[in-house]
Amino acid sequence: MLKVAIVGASGYTGVELIRILHSHPEVAVTCVTSEQSAGRPVSEIFPTLRGRCDLVLENLEPVGIAEKVDIVFTALPHKAAMEVVPTFLKMGKNIVDLSADYRLHDADVYGSWYERHLNPELLPEAVYGIPELRRAQISEASLIANPGCYPTSVILGVAPLLKDKVIDPRSIIVDAKSGVSGAGRGAKVDGLYCEVNEGFRAYGVGGVHRHIPEIEQELSLLAGDPLTITFTPHLVPMDRGILSTIYTQPLGKVNVPDLVKLYDAFYDGEPFVRVLPAGTLPSTAHVRGSNFCDIGIAVDDRTGRLIIVSAIDNLVKGASGQAVQNMNLMCGLPETLGLDILGIYP
Amino acid sequence: MLKVAIVGASGYTGVELIRILHSHPEVAVTCVTSEQSAGRPVSEIFPTLRGRCDLVLENLEPVGIAEKVDIVFTALPHKAAMEVVPTFLKMGKNIVDLSADYRLHDADVYGSWYERHLNPELLPEAVYGIPELRRAQISEASLIANPGCYPTSVILGVAPLLKDKVIDPRSIIVDAKSGVSGAGRGAKVDGLYCEVNEGFRAYGVGGVHRHIPEIEQELSLLAGDPLTITFTPHLVPMDRGILSTIYTQPLGKVNVPDLVKLYDAFYDGEPFVRVLPAGTLPSTAHVRGSNFCDIGIAVDDRTGRLIIVSAIDNLVKGASGQAVQNMNLMCGLPETLGLDILGIYP
Amino acid sequence: MLKVAIVGASGYTGVELIRILHSHPEVAVTCVTSEQSAGRPVSEIFPTLRGRCDLVLENLEPVGIAEKVDIVFTALPHKAAMEVVPTFLKMGKNIVDLSADYRLHDADVYGSWYERHLNPELLPEAVYGIPELRRAQISEASLIANPGCYPTSVILGVAPLLKDKVIDPRSIIVDAKSGVSGAGRGAKVDGLYCEVNEGFRAYGVGGVHRHIPEIEQELSLLAGDPLTITFTPHLVPMDRGILSTIYTQPLGKVNVPDLVKLYDAFYDGEPFVRVLPAGTLPSTAHVRGSNFCDIGIAVDDRTGRLIIVSAIDNLVKGASGQAVQNMNLMCGLPETLGLDILGIYP
Amino acid sequence: MLKVAIVGASGYTGVELIRILHSHPEVAVTCVTSEQSAGRPVSEIFPTLRGRCDLVLENLEPVGIAEKVDIVFTALPHKAAMEVVPTFLKMGKNIVDLSADYRLHDADVYGSWYERHLNPELLPEAVYGIPELRRAQISEASLIANPGCYPTSVILGVAPLLKDKVIDPRSIIVDAKSGVSGAGRGAKVDGLYCEVNEGFRAYGVGGVHRHIPEIEQELSLLAGDPLTITFTPHLVPMDRGILSTIYTQPLGKVNVPDLVKLYDAFYDGEPFVRVLPAGTLPSTAHVRGSNFCDIGIAVDDRTGRLIIVSAIDNLVKGASGQAVQNMNLMCGLPETLGLDILGIYP
Repeated sequence: MLKVAIVGASGYTGVELIRILHSHPEVAVTCVTSEQSAGRPVSEIFPTLRGRCDLVLENLEPVGIAEKVDIVFTALPHKAAMEVVPTFLKMGKNIVDLSADYRLHDADVYGSWYERHLNPELLPEAVYGIPELRRAQISEASLIANPGCYPTSVILGVAPLLKDKVIDPRSIIVDAKSGVSGAGRGAKVDGLYCEVNEGFRAYGVGGVHRHIPEIEQELSLLAGDPLTITFTPHLVPMDRGILSTIYTQPLGKVNVPDLVKLYDAFYDGEPFVRVLPAGTLPSTAHVRGSNFCDIGIAVDDRTGRLIIVSAIDNLVKGASGQAVQNMNLMCGLPETLGLDILGIYP
Repeated sequence: MLKVAIVGASGYTGVELIRILHSHPEVAVTCVTSEQSAGRPVSEIFPTLRGRCDLVLENLEPVGIAEKVDIVFTALPHKAAMEVVPTFLKMGKNIVDLSADYRLHDADVYGSWYERHLNPELLPEAVYGIPELRRAQISEASLIANPGCYPTSVILGVAPLLKDKVIDPRSIIVDAKSGVSGAGRGAKVDGLYCEVNEGFRAYGVGGVHRHIPEIEQELSLLAGDPLTITFTPHLVPMDRGILSTIYTQPLGKVNVPDLVKLYDAFYDGEPFVRVLPAGTLPSTAHVRGSNFCDIGIAVDDRTGRLIIVSAIDNLVKGASGQAVQNMNLMCGLPETLGLDILGIYP
Repeated sequence: MLKVAIVGASGYTGVELIRILHSHPEVAVTCVTSEQSAGRPVSEIFPTLRGRCDLVLENLEPVGIAEKVDIVFTALPHKAAMEVVPTFLKMGKNIVDLSADYRLHDADVYGSWYERHLNPELLPEAVYGIPELRRAQISEASLIANPGCYPTSVILGVAPLLKDKVIDPRSIIVDAKSGVSGAGRGAKVDGLYCEVNEGFRAYGVGGVHRHIPEIEQELSLLAGDPLTITFTPHLVPMDRGILSTIYTQPLGKVNVPDLVKLYDAFYDGEPFVRVLPAGTLPSTAHVRGSNFCDIGIAVDDRTGRLIIVSAIDNLVKGASGQAVQNMNLMCGLPETLGLDILGIYP
Repeated sequence: MLKVAIVGASGYTGVELIRILHSHPEVAVTCVTSEQSAGRPVSEIFPTLRGRCDLVLENLEPVGIAEKVDIVFTALPHKAAMEVVPTFLKMGKNIVDLSADYRLHDADVYGSWYERHLNPELLPEAVYGIPELRRAQISEASLIANPGCYPTSVILGVAPLLKDKVIDPRSIIVDAKSGVSGAGRGAKVDGLYCEVNEGFRAYGVGGVHRHIPEIEQELSLLAGDPLTITFTPHLVPMDRGILSTIYTQPLGKVNVPDLVKLYDAFYDGEPFVRVLPAGTLPSTAHVRGSNFCDIGIAVDDRTGRLIIVSAIDNLVKGASGQAVQNMNLMCGLPETLGLDILGIYP
């Protein structure tokens, strides 16, 4: 039984890690931390856990934590993560970092979208943890940069098109929509029920969302050339889920059945990607609570555009589920362990 | 006091017409019809009306109805509308038709997206009722084709750009999102609370939604040349509201402050269009229950794309409110009569 | 045109007052205050108001405000209200106070549920503003204590039963449910969308909610003897609405048709109370956005209990709508002015 | 590996059984039926299952089904269940019936609330499957009548009080609230998103809900004497969850700490009942997706009433989860197998 620490366990990705790992046969969560709520049982904050995980939240003291666990999940805001990850790494722990701190290969790019990086020397050894594209590297890594929620939905959505050079790489427009849990658990007027409920809005329009460099980095690698995208996030009045509608310009004539074959081949054997048959479209409701990414494909014959729709649960495949998938790979465990759960419906 | 009939009053646009007209000082709803619910008071179906509008729903007999009213709103499905509109017209009534039957100028286009038109000879005299673009014609008309909900949000959103030739007319991609009331009040499994709630999905992807020809007709007129668009509708788990995120390629260099000026000039004096200042984006929550169309403008400097976000309440500016606005114009009443109501928040 | 100030306009009852008064033909809102947001246009905080009410929020300086208006609505937390009301009163203004500060006749009772009262000498002249029970007094008053939302639903629900001595006054159990807007607009984790959505819970169980003394005061007056009640509030994942299910023990044999007659007689001519026919039950959805209180009556023949279900919109009849109704009475205006609006559905 | 059939798999309890059993190590679902959707893969109706359970829905032919499985879950409407259960029983299968058909011991009571019973001779051998009260009998049974959702929340909520004679058995008033999935998946206008969303209402007020005889039967057994209750169900705009607020009159002086001890002792060792500490109240959000019943206790010292609040997920502990718990007991498997899953939050 491997011992796991969840650093920053009082947020939604933290409780989701606990939920998933509770059904994992090879690991046990033995340490949870929270600066704000230290001293309180985590089950007091998240009563879903009552009677099953009543660990007391500890202060974040990296050395002490590292001494008692094998694996560390850092579910912290950016910057807070890079303040502690080096210590965990030095002490030989396997780390899955859910923040943005190790996702960008280039410290300058990080600097221009976030702030000055505190330990740029670690960036080369961090692996961007999207198993469908980088399984072997993940297995060898000690530090996984767990992808952002929007990026996961976009990268999995267009990877086959770029790899196979089906589309003009400069044509990508992503219209993305997220449930509210993506905004975290901080006390803000903007996040109040009455401010969010029964409303739909865009935010960060015009190329300013911090997930853009991460998406562009990965898509550029797939395309073999640097590319830029237009990305517009929206807020949906629901708890969980991301749906990305991705508009692209194919380089030649395309049709849906052939594209479905292309995707089927690209994702052949993947346990968590479901390519939908022609004529079928995904819904966030069909992946809620599960680690699936569902992908639907359509072509607009009138305008020639190729449209991909991909759906994930932002807290599972978009965060904690993918983090466990990465942990499994990193620790040599079967990749689906603890993750073979069906979505909850309704 | 003008007398009004609402034909097809047991749907959501019907009850919304009653709500709005209840506060209108110059008209009175005196006749409501419903084939399914004939004989029952409309307030039994919509108890919001109890004690204020307890009219009994009648069967739809055009001649009898026409004899007792001055104005007819047809809130019927397509086809059902064109079966009765000619009679109302023959009897000299002013008609606002909320169906799609008289929106398309070309009977063949109607035929290819819907079915064979029953009275194509009426199409030339029907006026597509978007007051901001066609106020004078509406004032002269007897038959108004009230625009669709999605088209209203899109046409108002891009009209200034096409009129001023700011963008490449072939570049328009509309990613539109609607609340559930847009799907009507029919009993279908797909529309059940548990099937819709906590889920977000696209539908009709790939250029198949019936609002496309209507949008293209109006945008082509504005551009002075035929154009096609890519249009993807989505379903948002909320009652009311449409938000359209519209991606375009500008022909030259653009910036937001100048575009705001352009929009301000285009919509100068318009009572129901609110152009938002640079840096501000609309939300459906800010127009809920009101006849406003809010428009936000952004430029993605990294990719050069120009993005418009427009929001309306699909049942007000997208249907019944715009219908009353058209009625006011048609009847020589002040355009804002009965419509100067603020949105409800939260 | 009477001039109105809304003191504390950055909360939900504040914006609802502005919404309602915007359609009121005899008053104009000319002053809005907010300590947190002073200097910002109120339409920046509530963009529903944009272009219709763009007043800049002022700091709360009672003398200055009083000088420029005729009527003051205080939409402040308790305590903050009684700090300023005496000044407004001294300057001869008509005041509708939406806080709890002047609702209880007995300063000691106020002290035991809230804190020491700052101006107990004003309590005798404040009138508890429930027009259906106290119309004449309200017309004469200068200071109206606008009732709480839960109390309005309960008092109107059982008044006829107590007045007519139909029930045992000690038998009243109120199981009340409220939408989330009742909890205000403060930034708290508990009020976040994801903490409230898809959950239903009780709070303040066991006789501790501060609306209890207010309900008991008014019901005791109706019964002619002091009584106590059991009151349990619950939180419903929706924006607006209160539904109170009230269990009582009749003193003799009762049946629904007779009770409906009793209620019809009691509320005869009341513009905002709708007694539902036998077999019909209210829903908060049927009063949303309107000033109605809908009341349904049932008898459980198996156990002999008499059950009342009453529904209001907590922000309208439960707060701002009733406040305007009181203002109308106080100012000698027709009682329904500005309030003859239908609920919004859906 | 035991083989399981789910008869009536196209409803919400059907898909929930599949979800839970997917994680059960000792059983496999090998047969699913649906009359309406026979011939279609169940994963087409519930795409959450895609790639994990793609069984084709079969017509309901009891003999054929019985031949190929060991255990049958009947998730059918009442009456439809009793038409097929005898066949399954004759063929020696273990049956968990989720309908109401075998819950009432007395065929006359069944007749007066439902209709004439088709096989009253089976009632004595059916065991009302509430494991916390009847574990031994369940282990011996072949036919389990799985309890209703409301009854589960009520019976577990008051069992200790009646068993210990703490309360007057005639004093019980249950104010119950359910999420919308309890109303099933039939196409009805009443169940549409826009009809349910943003509204809260009571239904079946006055002692007419069909869960009443079931609750009274079980509570009477616990009390040792026949009793009647007042029961009012309400509809909450959310997918899942039942919260019952139960008002009772204690026979003597009570306090919360002692009552918590009483409940703790009564439910000592129970894996799925969580008695909350004094001052803590349950929420449906804390049991969503899990098999827990959370119970909170309060006393209103001002009126002397004792109030119990209990929360379950209506589809898990209120239906499919409890059904699996019963199956485990009936088949000699560990009671918690497949059910040790945490609730999903948010």
